[in-house]
Amino acid sequence: MAKKPLRIGLVGYGFMGRTHSNGYKRVPDFFPELEYQPVLKAVCGRSEDKTKAFAEQWGYESYETDWNKLIARDDIDAIDICTPNDTHGPISIAAAKAGKMVLCEKPIGMSTAEGEEMVKAVEDAGIPNTIFYNYRRIPAVTLAKKIIDSGKLGRIFHYRANFLQDWTINADVPQGGAGLWRLDAASAGSGVTGDLLAHCIDTALWLNGSIKDVNAVTETFVKERMHSGTGKKEPVNIDDACSFFCHFENGSLGLFESTRYARGHKALYTFEINGENASIRWDLHDLHRLEYFDHADEGEVRGWRSIHVSDGDHPYMDHWWVPGLNIGYEHSFVHHVADFLKSIEEGKPCEPTFRSALETQKVCDAVLTSAAEKVWKDV
Amino acid sequence: MAKKPLRIGLVGYGFMGRTHSNGYKRVPDFFPELEYQPVLKAVCGRSEDKTKAFAEQWGYESYETDWNKLIARDDIDAIDICTPNDTHGPISIAAAKAGKMVLCEKPIGMSTAEGEEMVKAVEDAGIPNTIFYNYRRIPAVTLAKKIIDSGKLGRIFHYRANFLQDWTINADVPQGGAGLWRLDAASAGSGVTGDLLAHCIDTALWLNGSIKDVNAVTETFVKERMHSGTGKKEPVNIDDACSFFCHFENGSLGLFESTRYARGHKALYTFEINGENASIRWDLHDLHRLEYFDHADEGEVRGWRSIHVSDGDHPYMDHWWVPGLNIGYEHSFVHHVADFLKSIEEGKPCEPTFRSALETQKVCDAVLTSAAEKVWKDV
Amino acid sequence: MAKKPLRIGLVGYGFMGRTHSNGYKRVPDFFPELEYQPVLKAVCGRSEDKTKAFAEQWGYESYETDWNKLIARDDIDAIDICTPNDTHGPISIAAAKAGKMVLCEKPIGMSTAEGEEMVKAVEDAGIPNTIFYNYRRIPAVTLAKKIIDSGKLGRIFHYRANFLQDWTINADVPQGGAGLWRLDAASAGSGVTGDLLAHCIDTALWLNGSIKDVNAVTETFVKERMHSGTGKKEPVNIDDACSFFCHFENGSLGLFESTRYARGHKALYTFEINGENASIRWDLHDLHRLEYFDHADEGEVRGWRSIHVSDGDHPYMDHWWVPGLNIGYEHSFVHHVADFLKSIEEGKPCEPTFRSALETQKVCDAVLTSAAEKVWKDV
Amino acid sequence: MAKKPLRIGLVGYGFMGRTHSNGYKRVPDFFPELEYQPVLKAVCGRSEDKTKAFAEQWGYESYETDWNKLIARDDIDAIDICTPNDTHGPISIAAAKAGKMVLCEKPIGMSTAEGEEMVKAVEDAGIPNTIFYNYRRIPAVTLAKKIIDSGKLGRIFHYRANFLQDWTINADVPQGGAGLWRLDAASAGSGVTGDLLAHCIDTALWLNGSIKDVNAVTETFVKERMHSGTGKKEPVNIDDACSFFCHFENGSLGLFESTRYARGHKALYTFEINGENASIRWDLHDLHRLEYFDHADEGEVRGWRSIHVSDGDHPYMDHWWVPGLNIGYEHSFVHHVADFLKSIEEGKPCEPTFRSALETQKVCDAVLTSAAEKVWKDV
Repeated sequence: MAKKPLRIGLVGYGFMGRTHSNGYKRVPDFFPELEYQPVLKAVCGRSEDKTKAFAEQWGYESYETDWNKLIARDDIDAIDICTPNDTHGPISIAAAKAGKMVLCEKPIGMSTAEGEEMVKAVEDAGIPNTIFYNYRRIPAVTLAKKIIDSGKLGRIFHYRANFLQDWTINADVPQGGAGLWRLDAASAGSGVTGDLLAHCIDTALWLNGSIKDVNAVTETFVKERMHSGTGKKEPVNIDDACSFFCHFENGSLGLFESTRYARGHKALYTFEINGENASIRWDLHDLHRLEYFDHADEGEVRGWRSIHVSDGDHPYMDHWWVPGLNIGYEHSFVHHVADFLKSIEEGKPCEPTFRSALETQKVCDAVLTSAAEKVWKDV
Repeated sequence: MAKKPLRIGLVGYGFMGRTHSNGYKRVPDFFPELEYQPVLKAVCGRSEDKTKAFAEQWGYESYETDWNKLIARDDIDAIDICTPNDTHGPISIAAAKAGKMVLCEKPIGMSTAEGEEMVKAVEDAGIPNTIFYNYRRIPAVTLAKKIIDSGKLGRIFHYRANFLQDWTINADVPQGGAGLWRLDAASAGSGVTGDLLAHCIDTALWLNGSIKDVNAVTETFVKERMHSGTGKKEPVNIDDACSFFCHFENGSLGLFESTRYARGHKALYTFEINGENASIRWDLHDLHRLEYFDHADEGEVRGWRSIHVSDGDHPYMDHWWVPGLNIGYEHSFVHHVADFLKSIEEGKPCEPTFRSALETQKVCDAVLTSAAEKVWKDV
Repeated sequence: MAKKPLRIGLVGYGFMGRTHSNGYKRVPDFFPELEYQPVLKAVCGRSEDKTKAFAEQWGYESYETDWNKLIARDDIDAIDICTPNDTHGPISIAAAKAGKMVLCEKPIGMSTAEGEEMVKAVEDAGIPNTIFYNYRRIPAVTLAKKIIDSGKLGRIFHYRANFLQDWTINADVPQGGAGLWRLDAASAGSGVTGDLLAHCIDTALWLNGSIKDVNAVTETFVKERMHSGTGKKEPVNIDDACSFFCHFENGSLGLFESTRYARGHKALYTFEINGENASIRWDLHDLHRLEYFDHADEGEVRGWRSIHVSDGDHPYMDHWWVPGLNIGYEHSFVHHVADFLKSIEEGKPCEPTFRSALETQKVCDAVLTSAAEKVWKDV
Repeated sequence: MAKKPLRIGLVGYGFMGRTHSNGYKRVPDFFPELEYQPVLKAVCGRSEDKTKAFAEQWGYESYETDWNKLIARDDIDAIDICTPNDTHGPISIAAAKAGKMVLCEKPIGMSTAEGEEMVKAVEDAGIPNTIFYNYRRIPAVTLAKKIIDSGKLGRIFHYRANFLQDWTINADVPQGGAGLWRLDAASAGSGVTGDLLAHCIDTALWLNGSIKDVNAVTETFVKERMHSGTGKKEPVNIDDACSFFCHFENGSLGLFESTRYARGHKALYTFEINGENASIRWDLHDLHRLEYFDHADEGEVRGWRSIHVSDGDHPYMDHWWVPGLNIGYEHSFVHHVADFLKSIEEGKPCEPTFRSALETQKVCDAVLTSAAEKVWKDV
């Protein structure tokens, strides 16, 4: 059976450009049942040399150095945006206006206001759209969602999550430039809030519903860093660390923390949800395990279960190997691409859509405002 | 060599009465080098039958049913207070006025104001005094202190702690009465803040120094419970859950959480401290282990170390068995008693003194006020 | 209600003298329901100074320097033997002949032949007797037994255990003398086989039934060590390491390993039992946890459960603190003493009796013979 | 720069056919520095429908149903063998004679005798050859090798490994046929010995050197199973479980165990190596971690380190994502392919070669003979 092509135009060839490209390339091998098959039509970047090299390495048929040209091409069905946060808005709005599908790396944009314009653009255009909050599609996280939806947890009391890193402790790390634009507020919008907490919030909204209000604190431990643009020491305008608590609509309390100053943690994203009857926790460092405690278990032999999420009946795992054999981080993107292809096959939205991702942005904005004004803030 | 007796009068024969009594009885066997030896002179409780039974079981020479009489006895050197929180103040002040040494279960009292009177009383009387924040003397926790004092961590960025339980999820658990006075604000003062967070705060002040200001949220999930005193359903006035963040004087950020609604956690007290160069974490459920990450370790083989704190060169452990063999929770009280005996032998204070414990009370009060008023609060 | 005294005469004041003494002293506080109460009548050792000091420290009423005299005293009901292995036989036989109850530290003796004489002596005398294979009474291990007896595991396929230490790697550690007689074959009988594997075998026989035949290998890594008796380097005649596999009567395969050369392991005693329907594992380093896997759990949420064995319905735990709070190694001896007292109250044997412990000795002997002769050996 | 093509002819489209194909397809994306680039020329299988479907799914340019024809094609450079064990010999020998490079899934063949012929064939032909013992190229395992080679461990005392599964406990699982030929001795040669222990032995020989002699026991728990070929219950001729101990040439003791009857373990391959100065352990279920204990660490803070092998300076990891983000099982095959391509670029052998893999086969044969004859057996 011939596949329908989905012709991809990718903007950005950095870390995320690689994860998305890998997603497109692996889907046909591991999800052969899908009707659509991605075709790597073109990649776009500002540096011609690097863009060309990326195209050759990954097998893109062509390349562009101006994303307007990429969007203008009529041999492309979908634009995938993997550039720094400040460009998500302009590119996605232009792509939507051109009638292209849009797949965009998180977060949606620089602010709620910009996000609203983006949502309007994709919805007015009526085109399929999605934001890559990839952690939803780690099999263990998807399993958590399934367990929660089954009602096994009962009334929820607590949701807590953190995302701890340690890579910016050294004050000599500069801000700005390739790989380091995340330290530059002008490109990133914020620090750990938009970069890391946004992931935690997306998962939380998905697993535990809406957030009503937040109360936050932020800190910038290193006040000045060399700026790769100006070549001088410049004030650091991002949040190095951010904690907040919140009330969810379902009555539970939330507690979130993120930092890049937690020595010993590389990318420790964990969440835990405590219900009346059962609890769940997960940890990105051992992403293939889900911890599950069920109070209904017989008392004497009750304990946290360490579920090795690698069986054929675990989410997505029938597409991979055999029980006991792990997949990794990158597979979450493969799953996202597969689900996107399925969604266009079925004419349904692929979550999180721009509209859903806007909810995360609203929480991020409320968090940053709360921290700045030192007050509780409604979302 | 004849030992000097330290004649103990214990008030309260509940859970804490047992831990303290065990502490007194085991010290001579395991700390033979101490000059003082506890003598269990009398135990005091309101129920004569139960008090008498406790005296027989634990080997107290006599018993009283009125603590005023206990304090008045001149064959007693030290009063140990193991009663509910609302009686810590009156008993300790009376004991101090009578010139007795005072050892008191945590927290110091019902409020900062009461605590200040208690500090004044013991200091005016010039008598040895201590509050049993026992977790300082779990060997792994003492080792954490030693590592921090060595300077290995460098500048501190983060301190986080939580104390999670799940025993009050069932709405049929009544408030008030033996074992359940912790749910009755009139006896306990507060809920998890005074009961559990107080432990976390004491450890934090000890390990990481003073707290400047706090921002808290509290929640009461079950609004009414049967009251064992009135025999009717009464509003629940304690906090079932409390989270707060804070600034420490040393510039680090603190994050604390406690609840009795975290299904699956019996008594999960954990703390973690992240420094520029190294990090430490600990977990009461596996209290004999300390996790330690040292960035100075060679890169390729760097990782969190799981230290099994059971060697002869670990704090207190030369008094027990051989490497690999664990001691438990109760031993923290034995160590506290041993250190108290040593302190009177040397004429030095035994930390935490009433004055030190007052600092924890101040933080607790600021936390509760912050939560009530929804504002940041200076300590 | 007045307690019946059980007057103890202890032989040996080393590591085991301390664990047994602690057992006797704590039972009245924590097992008040028992009819019998131990009375520490006398301790016996060869060094008068040390014996006297031990008596004072631990509260023994008197002391002896000749165990024959201790046995001859008519104010003593039970002899407890905590001396090196080569003296277990003579002392216990003499005690039995004198009509004393006998409690003896493991192993039963130096060989099966000697063990048979010992069994005959205590059975002919008709006196209560027990060998302290203390690990049976770690609550998590007792829980394992309870689960197995419930039939939850179904047909058993595999039993594996190891006991790994690292304290004799340094070739400068001498053999013989206090604390080091375990390296001297003349005192210890064997090396890790009698010292460590004997524990593993006792637990295995208890949990999984009889062993039919064994096939073993032993190794002595350090061939000569300074001998504290002769003052010279002498050949080392013990086994530094021993592994064996075996067939159990129930058709399952056993695999056992012990060594004192496993760098990084202080006292890593672990066992695991795999049944058709469920599996169990345990680890002395975290002795308060039992791992349990139940295939009957719903597939998607099936995983190894980490049971924190600290609830009131866990074995022995209703005598201690509250859920989440650990007890330790020494408590296994307290439980053994409590069970012994209960057994004489009820007129029943206290397992393991000398007869039961002889079975462990038979396996040890077969293991050593198999290793020496390089053949399978029936037990 | 144009890549040199390496034209692959794959035989077998099962589980291993997928892992190898994935390896070939991903290498260009993640190892762009390599001179050679695999071209998926043809896949060969007996079922035309399935072979064709596999070719389409994975992008093979053509397909064959007779491996002789595949070998005869002159547009193919290398034959990759992913069929059951009994065909490794004939195919690889024919391929070598035709001058094709040979890459073969483990084990080398059905016996040492057959393996020797295979080695002769590839060496006479002078063609590049390798056997996919893929676990060597899990980054954590490669790191273990690097640590051992650095000399950090000192004299080695113990090597232990096991490979535990539970998928054949159900007696209704048939033998023979797709996915189940591993239970049929005629196709597989042996049971867990050739399937699982072979992996453990390959790693052991690589990490710890040659094995001198072995002593083994095997067991077949389910004696008869339905045979998919005959349609009748037939005796099971494979080993369901196998344990052995051995002496390594370096003087250390080895202990190995494998079974498919360890309820709760999906694919628990673990190894541990204990040296005089340091120890290492690894576990396939959490394959991205390496545990490391270094006795040279300062005493009080010494403990097993849990190394999250995901940094840029860890083996292979500079080709993937960023610190903290895991790769999985399949990547070991990508690394093997990458190393093979590098080896032909450099004109060096790619380990394990057929000759190296023959050493593993010799140990397997000695193990099976030892178990059958119940004696120690030299390798």
